[in-house]
Amino acid sequence: MNPLIILKSISILCVILAVFMAAPAGIALYLHEALPFRAFAVTIAVTVTLSLTVNLLLRRYRAEALSTRDGFLLVTLSWLAASMIGAMPFYISGSIPLFTDAFFESISGFSTTGASILTDIESLPRSMLFWRSLTHWLGGMGIVVLTVAILPLMGIGGLQLIQAEAPGPTVDRITPRITSTAKLLWFIYIGFTVAETLLLMLGGMDLFDALTHTFGTLATGGFSTKNSGVGHFNSAYLEGVITLFMLLAGINFTLHYRMLTGRLKPLLRDTELKAYLLIFIVATVSLAYSLHGFSYKSVGDSFRYAMFQVASIMTTTGFASADYEQWPFMAQIIIFMLMFVGGCSGSTGGGIKVMRLVVMFKQALNEMKLLLHPRGIFTLKMSGRMVRKNIVYAVSGFFFLYAMALLVVTFVVSSAGHDITTSFTAALATVGNIGPAFGKLGPMKNYSFLEDYIKWVLSFAMLVGRLELYTVLVLFTPRFWRK
Amino acid sequence: MNPLIILKSISILCVILAVFMAAPAGIALYLHEALPFRAFAVTIAVTVTLSLTVNLLLRRYRAEALSTRDGFLLVTLSWLAASMIGAMPFYISGSIPLFTDAFFESISGFSTTGASILTDIESLPRSMLFWRSLTHWLGGMGIVVLTVAILPLMGIGGLQLIQAEAPGPTVDRITPRITSTAKLLWFIYIGFTVAETLLLMLGGMDLFDALTHTFGTLATGGFSTKNSGVGHFNSAYLEGVITLFMLLAGINFTLHYRMLTGRLKPLLRDTELKAYLLIFIVATVSLAYSLHGFSYKSVGDSFRYAMFQVASIMTTTGFASADYEQWPFMAQIIIFMLMFVGGCSGSTGGGIKVMRLVVMFKQALNEMKLLLHPRGIFTLKMSGRMVRKNIVYAVSGFFFLYAMALLVVTFVVSSAGHDITTSFTAALATVGNIGPAFGKLGPMKNYSFLEDYIKWVLSFAMLVGRLELYTVLVLFTPRFWRK
Repeated sequence: MNPLIILKSISILCVILAVFMAAPAGIALYLHEALPFRAFAVTIAVTVTLSLTVNLLLRRYRAEALSTRDGFLLVTLSWLAASMIGAMPFYISGSIPLFTDAFFESISGFSTTGASILTDIESLPRSMLFWRSLTHWLGGMGIVVLTVAILPLMGIGGLQLIQAEAPGPTVDRITPRITSTAKLLWFIYIGFTVAETLLLMLGGMDLFDALTHTFGTLATGGFSTKNSGVGHFNSAYLEGVITLFMLLAGINFTLHYRMLTGRLKPLLRDTELKAYLLIFIVATVSLAYSLHGFSYKSVGDSFRYAMFQVASIMTTTGFASADYEQWPFMAQIIIFMLMFVGGCSGSTGGGIKVMRLVVMFKQALNEMKLLLHPRGIFTLKMSGRMVRKNIVYAVSGFFFLYAMALLVVTFVVSSAGHDITTSFTAALATVGNIGPAFGKLGPMKNYSFLEDYIKWVLSFAMLVGRLELYTVLVLFTPRFWRK
Repeated sequence: MNPLIILKSISILCVILAVFMAAPAGIALYLHEALPFRAFAVTIAVTVTLSLTVNLLLRRYRAEALSTRDGFLLVTLSWLAASMIGAMPFYISGSIPLFTDAFFESISGFSTTGASILTDIESLPRSMLFWRSLTHWLGGMGIVVLTVAILPLMGIGGLQLIQAEAPGPTVDRITPRITSTAKLLWFIYIGFTVAETLLLMLGGMDLFDALTHTFGTLATGGFSTKNSGVGHFNSAYLEGVITLFMLLAGINFTLHYRMLTGRLKPLLRDTELKAYLLIFIVATVSLAYSLHGFSYKSVGDSFRYAMFQVASIMTTTGFASADYEQWPFMAQIIIFMLMFVGGCSGSTGGGIKVMRLVVMFKQALNEMKLLLHPRGIFTLKMSGRMVRKNIVYAVSGFFFLYAMALLVVTFVVSSAGHDITTSFTAALATVGNIGPAFGKLGPMKNYSFLEDYIKWVLSFAMLVGRLELYTVLVLFTPRFWRK
């Protein structure tokens, strides 16, 4: 354990965060939002001063000395530190008067969940709304860089999925060094940001709404600047653009890089991508079928709302173009089932992830073959390559932990007297980094009414879910702290 | 594939079934229940005539020639044939006027589920109620003999759990030959039956109620002869006796045999048993805590109702001594969580089963250790013995299939416009062979109002759940039917 190096690394992260906070500070200044400006300025000043002091004191230590064990702690503490700093402007400016709420909103942003405690989003100063959406964008970028560039290249199996992908496409080193991989990912991410923003503006959104919704889309976050979410704009074109980019954000970023360099072949044979698109299509058709004649008269409208909501929930974005709790129960069940899917590995999406579902599905099929041919040898292939046995282990362990996490969170939420539907889907929506749930936490409702201790547990659930359980939970094993 | 041998085997089973049907026929005769008597007599006559004819025609074929593949088909068809014959008396006598309902009730009996379509149980003739409870007892005995005696000794990994147990206690051959093992199991089962019946009669139940409730207990079935279930008797003593025997029925029957022969050591080191009892104790204390002061004033009453309901749900019996839907939500969530547990392997209990949960739990822990020591080798032990890797595979495949089965059934139920809670817990209660669910299917409600197609799908779900998914689902793979 190298606590000082970890501290130093986090201090660097904090400085980067403070630099990004200059953007909403600038907006506050430009729009003459006095209290928000002061809050951003104070947060930036304190963060930079503290971080630079720490850095100066620890200048002798070099980040290269980090061990695997340090990696887990660093990643978890980074997300916590970011969320803490991110909460400051909300709290100091009084935009969110309670610290519990401010922290909840901030970790919901950085974990790209999108669960909100705001009862009237539109009443917030615009600079605060911008910062709120920016936390999504930063969190989304963070997770992609971490899962695709840093951890695999450092050989840290922290986010379990990396192990699961080891033989698959993700760990094909895009370029030999972390920095250049990260740079490429930034390039793609910023490219998508510019593209979506422009397309949204073409559809009539102003720059502010276009940017903030782009942040929420690409991070598969789901914070909107409107009380009724994307439904506010009531535009099939805008919903179409957002659907497209939600789907893109849910795809492994390694594949985007390849696509940009014109290598289409690996794309076509990528098992996870095929399964991801198949789920999207099947779910959209089923949902449109269940909506047609009930919630919407025309086939076109049924498909419009189905497509958007399927993409939103399965990628764990959580945007809403309609209140799905008003839909027929069969439609609601489809939404509920999609909450168990999640994006692709190496994307900004959360949840269980398509890769794991495919591995488990193929494993179940292999078991059936084994029953018929007990002496047969059946390999498990993904994208044409054999998946090693230990990856199947890692995936099944993950499944079990995920189920346990859901049950524990459900239990805690219900302890305050909330009904089964609310409690269970609250667990699904936070551990899976989705945002909206069912019952008292539907897409047109919010998390504000929950008891303080539940907000803290759900905050923790968002963090644990975002870092794919193992990274955080391993810190709670005695073995981790043993010499 | 040897369809004729399979047919012959089933015909033998049908004759055995007809012999047992003589009991309710006798009761009908004794109580002068004319229509029921005629229905039993017709069913017995037709079944015996047909079966003996088939047997005579196929007298050249010997059951020993059965292949593994035949085994899967035979087991599935046996349960279907029994359910079909079992439904006849209900339908012919007019006690259950619709065939869909009669079949649902029968397969619910033989699969030891205990889900009922009866709106007024007490209005049924007593001979019919006896037969209804007897289907539980026969189904329970069937599954124990199958999982503990027949399949493992034949080397058929049909019920996946047997593979999972291969290194554990179950497949320790109690005696070298199937017949003698089966005889011992019958002996234990009948011993328990006599003991519970006597103890219930000591508590004031008449012979009829004592026997029928014993059938429902030992099979972890849950059919009662009273509209308000076990709550009807409102006796802490009777509930205590039933709790004890539900717990006993949920334990691996191999352990019972050992206990009878005075070998207590394997009992004390049995990992599954320890986990089973631990879950029971933790759940009972939590449930009592959540009930105390809300549903019941005294600590004693809280424990009384908690203990009974925990045993009932976790062993997948489904008896109710109270309407748990009237309890606080936290208490309901505990019940909901217990629906994911199930009995021990080699017991009459259904569900996921404690053995599998323990394997997955230990696997998840091992994965965390691996993250910290990537080159370490961590074995998975159960009851002091190492569990082979391929068992972990089988268990993870099972988990995934179970989740899929739940989602598919949920989807079908919701397609008729039922809410999420009803749909999802209906899936849990049928695939897990529990019986009562939540929402429109609570413990004081019934399945009668459901649409016909849903009743058939749930009937299938009970069968698939009882035979632990693989056995039935493997029949739907093209590979099974390939030469």
